[in-house]
Amino acid sequence: MSLLVTTFLDRARDQSPDREIVDYVDGTCVRHSTYREYDARVRRLAGALRELGVRPGDRVATLAGNHHRHLELYLAVPLAGAVLHTVNLRLEPAEIAYVVDHADDTLLFLDAALRPAAAPARAARPGMRVVALDGDPEPGELRYEDLVAGGDPVHDPPPRGDDDLAALCYTTGTTGAPKGVGYTHQALYLHTMAAGLADGHAISRRDRVVHLVAMFHANAWGVPFAALMAGADQILPGPSPRVADVATIIERERATYLGMVPTLAVDLVAHARRTGADLTSLRALVLGGSTPSRELIRAIEEDLGVPAFQGWGMTETSPMATFSRPDPDAPPAERYAQIQMQGRLLPGLQWRLVDEDGATVPHDGVSRGELLLRGPWVASSYYRGERPEAFVDGWLRTGDVATIDAEGRLRVVDRTKDLIKSGGEWISSLALEAALLEAPGVADVAVVAVPHERWQERPVAVVVADGALDPDAVLAALDGRVPRWWRPDRVEVVDALPRTSVGKVDKRGLRERLAGGVGGSHNATAADSSPVSPAPS
Amino acid sequence: MSLLVTTFLDRARDQSPDREIVDYVDGTCVRHSTYREYDARVRRLAGALRELGVRPGDRVATLAGNHHRHLELYLAVPLAGAVLHTVNLRLEPAEIAYVVDHADDTLLFLDAALRPAAAPARAARPGMRVVALDGDPEPGELRYEDLVAGGDPVHDPPPRGDDDLAALCYTTGTTGAPKGVGYTHQALYLHTMAAGLADGHAISRRDRVVHLVAMFHANAWGVPFAALMAGADQILPGPSPRVADVATIIERERATYLGMVPTLAVDLVAHARRTGADLTSLRALVLGGSTPSRELIRAIEEDLGVPAFQGWGMTETSPMATFSRPDPDAPPAERYAQIQMQGRLLPGLQWRLVDEDGATVPHDGVSRGELLLRGPWVASSYYRGERPEAFVDGWLRTGDVATIDAEGRLRVVDRTKDLIKSGGEWISSLALEAALLEAPGVADVAVVAVPHERWQERPVAVVVADGALDPDAVLAALDGRVPRWWRPDRVEVVDALPRTSVGKVDKRGLRERLAGGVGGSHNATAADSSPVSPAPS
Repeated sequence: MSLLVTTFLDRARDQSPDREIVDYVDGTCVRHSTYREYDARVRRLAGALRELGVRPGDRVATLAGNHHRHLELYLAVPLAGAVLHTVNLRLEPAEIAYVVDHADDTLLFLDAALRPAAAPARAARPGMRVVALDGDPEPGELRYEDLVAGGDPVHDPPPRGDDDLAALCYTTGTTGAPKGVGYTHQALYLHTMAAGLADGHAISRRDRVVHLVAMFHANAWGVPFAALMAGADQILPGPSPRVADVATIIERERATYLGMVPTLAVDLVAHARRTGADLTSLRALVLGGSTPSRELIRAIEEDLGVPAFQGWGMTETSPMATFSRPDPDAPPAERYAQIQMQGRLLPGLQWRLVDEDGATVPHDGVSRGELLLRGPWVASSYYRGERPEAFVDGWLRTGDVATIDAEGRLRVVDRTKDLIKSGGEWISSLALEAALLEAPGVADVAVVAVPHERWQERPVAVVVADGALDPDAVLAALDGRVPRWWRPDRVEVVDALPRTSVGKVDKRGLRERLAGGVGGSHNATAADSSPVSPAPS
Repeated sequence: MSLLVTTFLDRARDQSPDREIVDYVDGTCVRHSTYREYDARVRRLAGALRELGVRPGDRVATLAGNHHRHLELYLAVPLAGAVLHTVNLRLEPAEIAYVVDHADDTLLFLDAALRPAAAPARAARPGMRVVALDGDPEPGELRYEDLVAGGDPVHDPPPRGDDDLAALCYTTGTTGAPKGVGYTHQALYLHTMAAGLADGHAISRRDRVVHLVAMFHANAWGVPFAALMAGADQILPGPSPRVADVATIIERERATYLGMVPTLAVDLVAHARRTGADLTSLRALVLGGSTPSRELIRAIEEDLGVPAFQGWGMTETSPMATFSRPDPDAPPAERYAQIQMQGRLLPGLQWRLVDEDGATVPHDGVSRGELLLRGPWVASSYYRGERPEAFVDGWLRTGDVATIDAEGRLRVVDRTKDLIKSGGEWISSLALEAALLEAPGVADVAVVAVPHERWQERPVAVVVADGALDPDAVLAALDGRVPRWWRPDRVEVVDALPRTSVGKVDKRGLRERLAGGVGGSHNATAADSSPVSPAPS
């Protein structure tokens, strides 16, 4: 019997009709609804999709923030038999066009505020229908609420099997073009079960979850499906909640579960200290996206009085792969050290640590190897077979260098590729180098990560000049080529790049030298007014 | 990728090598071991099975109590690619011969104390090898510890798929010959995930579980697999623990999770009241097998200080199908009423209530229908296609009459065959039993139909007294609780209710006896010295 995510909708309707879906915008509640209404709207929307010609297996894109309509699409698209492609709204418009074209999306659901970002994709795909999620549709566009009002409710979805895709997401985690990760019904179903385990995120009927993690990102950690399955309330913070909004939502809604990147958690802790905000309704603050500091873990537990956990995973792992839950009897220092590790593998998955020759590395907490993963919710290929070298014998090569101790705790210690993780989001050093090489006066370049207190890592460009070189002009040349937040914190000019014995740029040496030097500055705004960037694992 | 129960063994070795398996006999600890040792012994035992000629798909029988060797067979047999057939040791020897022959078991693992019960099966199957689990083997038998000592460890089990059987159990729940229920790897795997859900049994790494439920019965509720997956400690109480032994084990081992039938829970509560035993280490006492009285639920929660839950299921559902967890904010009376219901469907399963014509009955908490179930761990046929009428379009007909309320809570109100038809109207024997349990002096009760010349059938109550009991007062206590015409024609007092081999009240036997007109008492022993009968859901 197939394991289908659409059965979670039946379950929510039958078991939790009065549980809530609550929308906020800028810290103000704008809508209260129930799973009863959700169920009815999702079924009509799925009917409207069918009437628009969406066929089983078709890809339907969203370019949208965290709101109830996006949550409706999470179920309506699979209920129509189609595949939900959540587009990363922080990609450059040209990249959005690339992934929409690569996925061959037939329909796009679009937030009004994101129309400019969608323009190149629409130009490239004139046959793609566009549905305006909010505001008035522009000429040629459809209105979301018209679809919901007019659809013939779907009660018997088209037959789907375990291996049929329900969702699709592109990862920009490494170099090169974005790669598609397809999520089968079975993968999402089992991932949802794992999210409900008492040893994991433990999402249950007692929860009121806040979706701060972007809904475009790897199924928002899978929490929307888990909440539907369990009958938990769901609170959607709207397009760009500030940290004060997040605190307000937790306090007003007595939220119990919140997942977020460490960068934002630092802000939330600072905000709560300053304002005395009471966040103790939270039974779990789950950190993901990058390794939190022990001080952050301590502050969450001691200053906020909220239990801290860490989840780890990747777009390719749906995304939850491990969960760090400390031993109940561990003294505080040991407890924080445990939470800082990436934790234990979720049941259902398998892992290996291998050396450069593919030989198994012991689980002794010291020996390092590349982490390989496999299991029902781990990708064993990319959507159209991209980059096959990322997989070996059915195992995903994570690109992470890690240790595993004798009790099965993972610690990620390094990355095989030179990636920069800033505020929980990846910056590709190679893509940045390629863009910098186009700048005036740049003869050669290497981009490396330097530690940053707020963003964990920031890029620094080390360039060799071809004649005269104006660092500001170099940075200005990046506009429109890479996302603004990729812009290196500084440009350092050298006579020649250091190279290893085989002629490769010695990035490790560069990192070590730069890390010892200057703390980078960054155009960061004050914590209270900085838009939260719900960011990925 | 296949979902295999054997991966739980890898997981226990890798993540929980130092967690414990503890054996008790008669309330005394006789053995401490770890998952590290368990893993090594299981792999050698699986190797020995192969060397004995056990091939993938072969059935291997156990006739054994709750001890570590039985727990080793739970994983070693599937690791050899074979199917674990746990034989119900309370069947009559001729029935044991029947099921062993029906399953075509090639090997039998046997407790010395159960040799007499196995004699007819062995006579009927001279080619079946027998392994003595304890004591000295008799001529022709193999010694268990020799196999464990000599086997070549299995690290690469034979390839198995989702739909291959890992276990097999026979149900004697209804009339006719026992029927086989095969459990696939996928079924047990998903059932194990469900057992770890925070909304369900929530078995986790923090647990120390006691296996009071018989290991021959439907995978001991699946708790051994759940404990392995989670890395929980497992405590095995030995062949025939008395209620005082159970209390001792809980106190000494600081056990956290215990599943048991209400009858035994009544004894445990009485024992703890009398002796002051401290059972508060239990985070969950899960009742299953029959509907508990509200007084029992109250006593567990208030007198013992232990949270009570109810699990419901059948051999055909692996066996967990629903779990009753009360709303956290329900006041005590409402809380006990909720726990007395069979609770919410575990995620992954689907249900329907249907009337006699197969039409759907509404989920309004009042309308009654037969409960149908389906899902990845619900049987859709018996082992060799026995009794096909128990299944319809892939749904299991449970034979239970139930209501489901608008929040998805199940209440089993009767067995289709336990209904009493009086003057053309149905009387629910279960509802009548529930009302009688509230009457003064009633410790236990069964209501059965006896033929009646005028009314076709009339109810008779068979009660176990808790001290002095006045039959007229018992009947008077029904006023206002059930319709007047439901009032039983007579109340018969017995020392104990007759039970079937799996611990259910033997209503068929009672009906036959009462129809013949014979009153009868019954050999019951005092609570403290009566062997606990680990019994089924």
